Amino acid sequence: MENRLQKQLDFILEIDKEKNIFRQTHLSGHGRNENDAEHAWHMAIMAYLLKEYANEPVDAGRVMLMCLIHDIVEIEAGDTYAYDTEGLKTQKAREDAAKEKIFSLLPEDQKRELICLFDEFEEGTSADARFAHAMDNLQPLLLNDSNGGADWKSHGVTAAQVYGRQGTTAQGSEQLYEVTDRILKEHIRKGNITP
Amino acid sequence: MENRLQKQLDFILEIDKEKNIFRQTHLSGHGRNENDAEHAWHMAIMAYLLKEYANEPVDAGRVMLMCLIHDIVEIEAGDTYAYDTEGLKTQKAREDAAKEKIFSLLPEDQKRELICLFDEFEEGTSADARFAHAMDNLQPLLLNDSNGGADWKSHGVTAAQVYGRQGTTAQGSEQLYEVTDRILKEHIRKGNITP
Repeated sequence: MENRLQKQLDFILEIDKEKNIFRQTHLSGHGRNENDAEHAWHMAIMAYLLKEYANEPVDAGRVMLMCLIHDIVEIEAGDTYAYDTEGLKTQKAREDAAKEKIFSLLPEDQKRELICLFDEFEEGTSADARFAHAMDNLQPLLLNDSNGGADWKSHGVTAAQVYGRQGTTAQGSEQLYEVTDRILKEHIRKGNITP
Repeated sequence: MENRLQKQLDFILEIDKEKNIFRQTHLSGHGRNENDAEHAWHMAIMAYLLKEYANEPVDAGRVMLMCLIHDIVEIEAGDTYAYDTEGLKTQKAREDAAKEKIFSLLPEDQKRELICLFDEFEEGTSADARFAHAMDNLQPLLLNDSNGGADWKSHGVTAAQVYGRQGTTAQGSEQLYEVTDRILKEHIRKGNITP
């Protein structure tokens, strides 16, 4: 088999491990913890269906791909919970090393392409990236809302923390941020999020 | 919240259930059974990375979306193993009813759009659909190959059965079918697939 295709297949097999990286979010119906691959699949479909609410026009194919690959580095670096203050301090260094290692399995042109897309997402430097971030926020919020805010309750998350994270949704979609804000206010009112 | 957005969010929450539909394929490293959402995520990334091997030019964004949604009906209809002769007899009727039910949660235009894309995949009536099918075949084949053919062995799958299914890969990609054929011949030689 030619070397190029072998590299692509090696990468494809490596990323299978993303299915074993579990997040703090629980599936709807008070299910088990969700993993990164499931989260990315859900975000990509959401991006396609909700693209009409983006603040600026987005390229749905690019946003979907960005969603699909945005957590691949966690195969090496592990998942960092959005409200884990200590973990967040080392997250960037851990993920940068992981990025170089994992994407280097690919042929050079595809390595460069996916790293650019990954960095664009991380830096939020485009309409596509800002909308993908809105999906990254909204997806676990919808699951958590469907479970009566159980994930916020169990971690004692405060309104300041959750607004700090979810506030970036407005940069991708003002309309989806309105939904977010309504859901958060309701959970604060019910005491599921600490005021 | 406007009715249109509420419908979209209802659909998004409903498809979370796809993460609980488990397949016969096992994750690499002799892991647990894979679920449909993970399988679809993996296929969509593969489609993007391997599109250069498609027999005819494909629209990567459409193929990715097709991969992401192609198993949604199994939320209602369940997974039918590729070599389950009895299950395959009723699969179409079960999946048609499920398709109508699930996609009806969406606004009418998006319902029509996703059903068209789903049908195009099922019928293999386009280059995009035939390439998506090649991904649907190749993804579990790579995992099973990485596990020494354990899934074929445990089900006593025959060469005729596996070639009947995997043969359709050639319609989407002759080059990826060559890889498939090489892998299958090796597993037949080792006795993992019954000749």
